[in-house]
Amino acid sequence: MIRIGIDAMGGDYAPKEQVEGAMLAIERLTDIEINLYGDPVKIDTYLKKNERIHVIDAPYVIDMGEKNPIKAIKDHPESSMAKALSSLRTHENDVVISSGATQALIAGAHILVRRMPGFKRTAIAPVIPSISGKETILLDAGANLEIRPEHMLQQAYFAVVYAREVLGRPNPSVGLINIGTEEGKGRDIDKEVFVLFKETDLFDFVGNVEPKMVLDPPCDILISDGFTANIVMKTMEGTAKGMGTILKQELTRTFFGKIGALLAKKRLQAFKTAMSPEEVGGALIYGLYRPVIKAQGASKAYGFYNAIRQGALIVRNEVFPKVEAFLAQNRGVEDGE
Amino acid sequence: MIRIGIDAMGGDYAPKEQVEGAMLAIERLTDIEINLYGDPVKIDTYLKKNERIHVIDAPYVIDMGEKNPIKAIKDHPESSMAKALSSLRTHENDVVISSGATQALIAGAHILVRRMPGFKRTAIAPVIPSISGKETILLDAGANLEIRPEHMLQQAYFAVVYAREVLGRPNPSVGLINIGTEEGKGRDIDKEVFVLFKETDLFDFVGNVEPKMVLDPPCDILISDGFTANIVMKTMEGTAKGMGTILKQELTRTFFGKIGALLAKKRLQAFKTAMSPEEVGGALIYGLYRPVIKAQGASKAYGFYNAIRQGALIVRNEVFPKVEAFLAQNRGVEDGE
Repeated sequence: MIRIGIDAMGGDYAPKEQVEGAMLAIERLTDIEINLYGDPVKIDTYLKKNERIHVIDAPYVIDMGEKNPIKAIKDHPESSMAKALSSLRTHENDVVISSGATQALIAGAHILVRRMPGFKRTAIAPVIPSISGKETILLDAGANLEIRPEHMLQQAYFAVVYAREVLGRPNPSVGLINIGTEEGKGRDIDKEVFVLFKETDLFDFVGNVEPKMVLDPPCDILISDGFTANIVMKTMEGTAKGMGTILKQELTRTFFGKIGALLAKKRLQAFKTAMSPEEVGGALIYGLYRPVIKAQGASKAYGFYNAIRQGALIVRNEVFPKVEAFLAQNRGVEDGE
Repeated sequence: MIRIGIDAMGGDYAPKEQVEGAMLAIERLTDIEINLYGDPVKIDTYLKKNERIHVIDAPYVIDMGEKNPIKAIKDHPESSMAKALSSLRTHENDVVISSGATQALIAGAHILVRRMPGFKRTAIAPVIPSISGKETILLDAGANLEIRPEHMLQQAYFAVVYAREVLGRPNPSVGLINIGTEEGKGRDIDKEVFVLFKETDLFDFVGNVEPKMVLDPPCDILISDGFTANIVMKTMEGTAKGMGTILKQELTRTFFGKIGALLAKKRLQAFKTAMSPEEVGGALIYGLYRPVIKAQGASKAYGFYNAIRQGALIVRNEVFPKVEAFLAQNRGVEDGE
């Protein structure tokens, strides 16, 4: 049985949507057990008893607008988020899902779950939409502002294993976000990463990719440092939001446009949500001891079901053990440890 | 008389649109003279004789896809682009406009026009659209990948003078592109620039601005290093293009949507063009000895008229002398020269 811990109290619609998502997943996925962390009274309002769903008493909720996330996590070990995260170290769960405050979740993951042995820099890896309908993994959406090429190689390798095992890409390819496509473009770090990635036989490297291809990339994974990839994420969000506003103004000027806009509204909305960095739906934190998934704050039951399915896939297809084995094999070679 | 030099042979529709734009400008702006650099035979096909328009023989055209722009400029001093640029040093023109190859124009400007005394790093400053309809100046779209805070202060000051004198903003404000709004966010360079800008009384600094506000910014000028701002430009372009494609697919699925899409098409197209970095329409190069404006490669007569009007405004309102005076006053203080 794959054991999935869910922080049932974080996010906009807790615990209703978490509980309903869990019930949906339990019906569809026969090899999982779910542990819900939260207020048993509130959870019981929505929960239909199931022998594979357990409730663990952890009623304290870390506030979404928490200014000092590290302090919040340390001060509240009995919170639904902290208790769920701690369960990974004690092997009570194989994966944890939370739609709670992003910064608190990242801080909590570092304090309570800690890093995978040999993995140097954890990364946040949202999945962004594309024109083709195939998702693209974007690395690193904000964990490391300054980074070394070897760390980016580890992160890229992690993404490759994830893309293969979870997204079903047989031969995942990696592109380096840059201001030009030719070799030699960009800052020193970009040039160094280019050389390192070009020489590796760990994955297929397509070279530099300009972000004007961000929704139509020639690869499965787009990587840069945490500053640049975060800027890309937020520019996508801002452009999508701004264009949405302008288009809406434009379309609703005419009668036919109004109807067209109504019909396109749902898709537009989904698109904007998918590109919001606060809403990195089902973003996996790479390089922790065990998997932690950040679900969207506004996730509904189906969103949680999807995150649970994603978590089960990560465990079932042994993403973490595969990366761990690679790191164990390569330790001392790449970084002089 | 303000003398405006035009590279009549660069761009997609040369020299027809350049010549027609010049004729339009000569009619509307009574204080200008225009020098057209190019092939006199081709130019004469479109030119109605006017005593304030002169044609200078320079038939060679620098190729748009030129791989080695520095060599191209050096090897072809008689090209329309090189001859137009050289005229700034000899004071035959007050401003030069070209819609020719961007990289060649930048290289040519550095070789043939050279820098303004005391200005450390030239910058390319496209103007991007916003939801409000007011343009935003984006700095630096690609000239300097690694830069010092003092250089960014000079660039920001230049943008402030430009915004005041050309865009008509009485009190232009500056925002630093960053991954979070709080002070202390970002890389070392961002933190240093924040402190320097916060202390300056040269302009109103609004602090850090996340690029999710890129189309609705709380300031007139958005600034970062040449790598980051170029990434922002290209991500905007990619997102606009990708969203356009997805929306089109979506809208054209239904009858009403199809009509709505047709009606919105022109605006969408203009929006995508405005966000294309290859098409930095009327982007001024900051920090040269005299103003050089890069017009869009696909500019039509009205586009050239607008670039001519912009160039005349820059000269008439003394943007360059004002920045020069500031640099002369502050030389030796800011950078130890």
